[in-house]
Amino acid sequence: MTHLIVTDYGREIRRVQAEILATYHEDGGTNHLDEKNLPTRAEVMELVNRILRLIFPGFYDGDDNIHRGNVESWCGYQLDKIHQGLARQLARCACIGCMGQEMQKTLARAEHVSLDFISSLPKVRRLLHKDVRAAYIGDPAAASVEEVILAYPSIQAIAMYRLAHELYLRGVPLIPRLISEYAHMHFGIDIHPGADIGDSFFIDHGTGVVIGETCEIGSNVKVYQMVTLGALSFNKDAEGRLIKGRMVKRHPTIEDDVVLYAGCTILGGETTIGRGSIIGGNVWVTSSVPDNTVITFDADKAEYRRFVRAAR
Amino acid sequence: MTHLIVTDYGREIRRVQAEILATYHEDGGTNHLDEKNLPTRAEVMELVNRILRLIFPGFYDGDDNIHRGNVESWCGYQLDKIHQGLARQLARCACIGCMGQEMQKTLARAEHVSLDFISSLPKVRRLLHKDVRAAYIGDPAAASVEEVILAYPSIQAIAMYRLAHELYLRGVPLIPRLISEYAHMHFGIDIHPGADIGDSFFIDHGTGVVIGETCEIGSNVKVYQMVTLGALSFNKDAEGRLIKGRMVKRHPTIEDDVVLYAGCTILGGETTIGRGSIIGGNVWVTSSVPDNTVITFDADKAEYRRFVRAAR
Amino acid sequence: MTHLIVTDYGREIRRVQAEILATYHEDGGTNHLDEKNLPTRAEVMELVNRILRLIFPGFYDGDDNIHRGNVESWCGYQLDKIHQGLARQLARCACIGCMGQEMQKTLARAEHVSLDFISSLPKVRRLLHKDVRAAYIGDPAAASVEEVILAYPSIQAIAMYRLAHELYLRGVPLIPRLISEYAHMHFGIDIHPGADIGDSFFIDHGTGVVIGETCEIGSNVKVYQMVTLGALSFNKDAEGRLIKGRMVKRHPTIEDDVVLYAGCTILGGETTIGRGSIIGGNVWVTSSVPDNTVITFDADKAEYRRFVRAAR
Repeated sequence: MTHLIVTDYGREIRRVQAEILATYHEDGGTNHLDEKNLPTRAEVMELVNRILRLIFPGFYDGDDNIHRGNVESWCGYQLDKIHQGLARQLARCACIGCMGQEMQKTLARAEHVSLDFISSLPKVRRLLHKDVRAAYIGDPAAASVEEVILAYPSIQAIAMYRLAHELYLRGVPLIPRLISEYAHMHFGIDIHPGADIGDSFFIDHGTGVVIGETCEIGSNVKVYQMVTLGALSFNKDAEGRLIKGRMVKRHPTIEDDVVLYAGCTILGGETTIGRGSIIGGNVWVTSSVPDNTVITFDADKAEYRRFVRAAR
Repeated sequence: MTHLIVTDYGREIRRVQAEILATYHEDGGTNHLDEKNLPTRAEVMELVNRILRLIFPGFYDGDDNIHRGNVESWCGYQLDKIHQGLARQLARCACIGCMGQEMQKTLARAEHVSLDFISSLPKVRRLLHKDVRAAYIGDPAAASVEEVILAYPSIQAIAMYRLAHELYLRGVPLIPRLISEYAHMHFGIDIHPGADIGDSFFIDHGTGVVIGETCEIGSNVKVYQMVTLGALSFNKDAEGRLIKGRMVKRHPTIEDDVVLYAGCTILGGETTIGRGSIIGGNVWVTSSVPDNTVITFDADKAEYRRFVRAAR
Repeated sequence: MTHLIVTDYGREIRRVQAEILATYHEDGGTNHLDEKNLPTRAEVMELVNRILRLIFPGFYDGDDNIHRGNVESWCGYQLDKIHQGLARQLARCACIGCMGQEMQKTLARAEHVSLDFISSLPKVRRLLHKDVRAAYIGDPAAASVEEVILAYPSIQAIAMYRLAHELYLRGVPLIPRLISEYAHMHFGIDIHPGADIGDSFFIDHGTGVVIGETCEIGSNVKVYQMVTLGALSFNKDAEGRLIKGRMVKRHPTIEDDVVLYAGCTILGGETTIGRGSIIGGNVWVTSSVPDNTVITFDADKAEYRRFVRAAR
């Protein structure tokens, strides 16, 4: 390593400063100066947590003073705060360096989208209620419904997914992915906001689960840790660039009542796991599987077994 | 999406409010109004961190002013704070909507359990000391014992497990699982408080590790990332409901001196991995393995090999 | 469980206090009293986040007031804060119970190392710029470069690795590992600061990825979740103790343009994956693979396939 004389440190700092400033002028992407169009991580997450308090009333720290007597006004107050904060964040995302007239339109549009999103919350709450039941019924270690809501990361991750998905459906940029990656960071469960997931969805343990943008998942599906629902290969355009977003279905379809055990990997947009099938741990699937099929690894023979079971 | 006139927004908010309030009256589970019996996440975690400071004195931010001169009073002060906070949280959990006489009994009972738990801390500290040694001795990348305590998530996760386990043994509801899921969330290591784990336990890397409620693990066991010690199938009662908790041993037994490499999966309550055995990465085991057996995947032949090695 | 009379609780607390104090005097390792040589977790992470703000200007909460007009002074101010904080933390680590003259030398040395580290930031920024591009180009789900920087945990994890690596190269104890385990904790991606990783590195999803201390990774390498680049076996010295650190290359070499799919495991210091090769999901590799080789699992035949593809 180079050796510097400490007394020069002011000069050295200035040298590095100049060098870093120079990189700010290089072909950007990592620069984001002079623009006011990024969502605020902290406010987005505060919004998400506010919505979760509304969905699971009385379950979060500081909410134990909510009772039948004050719940109505509490609920209205929360909704208003959610709407105002969300509209503000939506405007930040939608409005890339716009101002004046343009800015006014953006704000009005943001309010529309925010209210439309908020009107989906009762539906989301009903879905999450079913997800909680599915966890309680599906996990012998779940001692109570309270335990599931309080302590299961998968419920928090699914809740955040369902909120991010509603924003994704309304074409909101950045924010849905911020929410899903926040969940990914905290719970190790990576569900892209674009995925389409039915009711009574249960993820057990969940660490390492990856569910891709164009997945379609039916009702009453059970997924264990380290399951990947991913892409088999990527389509490119004429210039050899990847085709982005939902234009191509890259991820599998999982029908109702399927169970996917720990570490199994299912890849490809044309891959469908038929209703009632069970895919064993660490199994690797890249083509469709008919209804009520069981694929499992026989540890003694050290080989895969595949058979059809009686339909449920 | 529907298009709303923004000036109606008050009305729209009220409409959604009414709808959400209606869902609060639907068959509950996700509702928790009018009850004061849930633990406070924040206080529970503050308690856990206070206990960890006591177990690793001088290792946490702000604790570098502890020295031989003041450690005695510091220790007593911490224990008192721990007891008071824990008793309060235990009372919250135990007392579902109870009051008066009943409440008094609950508080007394909570104090008993809290003190009984606290009396186990010296034992827990000795166990963690051995876990730290096992990590230092077992990992070539561990440069010092300090590094292990300061930086290894697995040590924090095992410490939280050992505390949650002591509460679990005393029949405390909710709190043990809150602690274990906090560890799961932060370290990606999911150890159920019910698991019974011997001394000198080392988890390397650890992300994705799952250890089920009825696992029994001996001394000096080494586990790598993404190892699952899980259930093979679930027992149901006459009504077809899963049998909850410890009534059925659903998870494997791992004897002393076993090594479980990355991604191996061991399932079933009757599955025992014999003393001194080594299970290779990604190996899938659903039946017992005798002592000193090595099961590994031969990458070149792309097949599994299984042999008995000389006992250590 | 034992039953205590609550009125004795003061006595019981004192009994446990005495017992815990006794364990503090037992053969240590978990004790750290009377020493002032540990880094402060909180300040180290504040430093890392300050550096990330400098590298991705305008991307973090509260930084949206940075513009061309004030960026120069902002940058200089940040660099100065970084230098002062880092020098302070370096001195804490380097100086184990030293004082007076000795302490002065340590502080001077710490300032040298801090400035030398800071002079590497422009290089690190250019590398991260390439990593961000690699993520945007390599992931169909990446809607924009902004989304990658704001929401991709892998970019944050790689950024923290690149900073920790610069400190590691300068022989700094504890702090590099604190940073890498902070990233591991938050993003589930465990990259040892000692690993040597080329430019345009992309980790997709990332949960469960483990990259060992002596790995060498070329340019333009793409890694998916749950990939392990680990050790095959550990060398021991004459006394049977593991040989620590970089003295032995324990982890594989991955050459340029390699793709490692979800859950594949590559082990051993002599294992090299040749340029342009593709290792399929869940594949287990313990010996070298030549250039442009594809190893994949054939789900239908339930067997591994291995072939050479046309060089790119």
